[in-house]
Amino acid sequence: MPSILVLSGSPSATSRTAALAEHLALRLRERDHRVRTIRVRELPPAALLSGDTRDPAVAEVVEAVAAADGVVVASPVYKAAYSGLLKSLLDLLPQFALAGKAVLPVVTGGSPAHVLAVDYALRPVLSALGAHHVVQGWFVLDSHIVAVGDAVELAEGARRPLYEVVDGFSDVLHARRPLIDAS
Amino acid sequence: MPSILVLSGSPSATSRTAALAEHLALRLRERDHRVRTIRVRELPPAALLSGDTRDPAVAEVVEAVAAADGVVVASPVYKAAYSGLLKSLLDLLPQFALAGKAVLPVVTGGSPAHVLAVDYALRPVLSALGAHHVVQGWFVLDSHIVAVGDAVELAEGARRPLYEVVDGFSDVLHARRPLIDAS
Amino acid sequence: MPSILVLSGSPSATSRTAALAEHLALRLRERDHRVRTIRVRELPPAALLSGDTRDPAVAEVVEAVAAADGVVVASPVYKAAYSGLLKSLLDLLPQFALAGKAVLPVVTGGSPAHVLAVDYALRPVLSALGAHHVVQGWFVLDSHIVAVGDAVELAEGARRPLYEVVDGFSDVLHARRPLIDAS
Amino acid sequence: MPSILVLSGSPSATSRTAALAEHLALRLRERDHRVRTIRVRELPPAALLSGDTRDPAVAEVVEAVAAADGVVVASPVYKAAYSGLLKSLLDLLPQFALAGKAVLPVVTGGSPAHVLAVDYALRPVLSALGAHHVVQGWFVLDSHIVAVGDAVELAEGARRPLYEVVDGFSDVLHARRPLIDAS
Repeated sequence: MPSILVLSGSPSATSRTAALAEHLALRLRERDHRVRTIRVRELPPAALLSGDTRDPAVAEVVEAVAAADGVVVASPVYKAAYSGLLKSLLDLLPQFALAGKAVLPVVTGGSPAHVLAVDYALRPVLSALGAHHVVQGWFVLDSHIVAVGDAVELAEGARRPLYEVVDGFSDVLHARRPLIDAS
Repeated sequence: MPSILVLSGSPSATSRTAALAEHLALRLRERDHRVRTIRVRELPPAALLSGDTRDPAVAEVVEAVAAADGVVVASPVYKAAYSGLLKSLLDLLPQFALAGKAVLPVVTGGSPAHVLAVDYALRPVLSALGAHHVVQGWFVLDSHIVAVGDAVELAEGARRPLYEVVDGFSDVLHARRPLIDAS
Repeated sequence: MPSILVLSGSPSATSRTAALAEHLALRLRERDHRVRTIRVRELPPAALLSGDTRDPAVAEVVEAVAAADGVVVASPVYKAAYSGLLKSLLDLLPQFALAGKAVLPVVTGGSPAHVLAVDYALRPVLSALGAHHVVQGWFVLDSHIVAVGDAVELAEGARRPLYEVVDGFSDVLHARRPLIDAS
Repeated sequence: MPSILVLSGSPSATSRTAALAEHLALRLRERDHRVRTIRVRELPPAALLSGDTRDPAVAEVVEAVAAADGVVVASPVYKAAYSGLLKSLLDLLPQFALAGKAVLPVVTGGSPAHVLAVDYALRPVLSALGAHHVVQGWFVLDSHIVAVGDAVELAEGARRPLYEVVDGFSDVLHARRPLIDAS
């Protein structure tokens, strides 16, 4: 069962990005993945900003990234790019931390004007981390993420394309296993 | 006397980026600017990462940005882009925080392979902050920043082009004042 | 009277980008500029694609760029970036062809999802050409460019912000002259 | 036998990019691929620049892209990005021309300062074309491409990492076939 780590990089306590990340984690569990979600904002701020990988909580996340088969990287768009919070975590990972992993970038934003931040801002950073297979990313408008009790639903038009991308990511992970086991 | 704020975004306590920023501040003072340097790493980490602009130290920096005529934005290259630490500060500035200001991006890195991070990663974020005049930025190789006691010197070949860029930035600021005063 | 060259990079014979470029040229003439517009598609294709700067028509454009005080670079968004046609012309310019010039990037597209192409795709190329002052660029939605006889008008909401950007560009050019004359 | 199309986008008649593309085509043939190489500069310039897909030579290339299982996209770095010549071809492809294909970006340049053009300039365009699996790209220094008679060799240090990337691309293509056949 390919394992997936979901990193959610919104600074906000009541974040649509985080709620969307949990929603995608549920979908991935239904498709036979062991999924763990990490909110970067719950890591110790001082250790994060100083890149202190000896901090136990930070060290544990670095190990979790190393152990995962796939990584979902979720961020709101701030100032035409990913959040500084998310980048602080990515900064302290080893140079090729994403080598050999499938990676799914998901970005949320208030306006369609931010769509290209996925490919021009986030994807080059994931490439720099050695990610060999960054699947097609996706941008979700804030207004398409609708609160339903404690959880969220996706607006009709937004659900199908995002699920296609997420399911494609899951397929990549399921397809790789045998290849790797056989080698 | 046009005022300049230097934001230095390295997470490291013994940072070449920070030492270079101080060196440029000296140069700018000699050219008749009031210059203040802020190391982002000295701001309270929790307030920074949660975007808490009510924190007094953070609020004071937001005001200092608003009051400055020019801003130098200095960052090391991490994972093909600016540091998450620097971006955390930029994230909590108001949407058009750099409107009407001259901005000088300076990036340091261990390899010439990171040069384009100035124009492809940092500059679009400065544009998103409303900067109307981002002058030509500059990339400085770590190995060209040489410690001399507590301060740093620049290697022979690196000094002239960087000073040209810094002096050009200063010229822009001195040229603008009368124009603005006259209007 | 600061001179301006408008480069319009749409491959289409009936292009909104080209019509918008002419519209902006009119506005700039009213603000006391000598303005010339060049449609890249009217240059000889073989010379353009092979970078043949001995071709008389190409050579003449290279000289016109060198002689201009300001350059407007206009392109439609194709595949998340500027057109290949525009880039073919930029490719054959000398390395620092835009040094010392003010440059205004203007991009048109069918969807707001392409907005960031101005800052992430076009602006880094203009920086690589040595442009020291690329003013704030602008993105215009195709649907805001309305044909009126042979010319175009801009939709109400689109006109004001674009004119502000264009007038700002003009102000930069008028302000620089005396500075340069004085030196 | 998965088929591969190599698009080589240098405007120059005696191009290192083109020679490198042929060299990679040889390697891929040895690894059991049907490989075809297209030099974009040999397509009719007028049809290319006007996006005329009714031109027989252009139409044939559009079909060849559609039929290929994998595509190598090779370009020199000009002005911090891919060549306008290459982009002219990409511009006239249908919107999702690379959907379902594996894509390998290869960029050549005179200085390591251009390395990030692979990930910040070329890759976002490939994503916009719907490419679902762009493998790790590679940057090759001009000085590492050494002429040997009519062909080229790669300098010692450059050969191994590039072959690893190319072989990884080949592995992706060989691994996909059964998956697709089985579905």
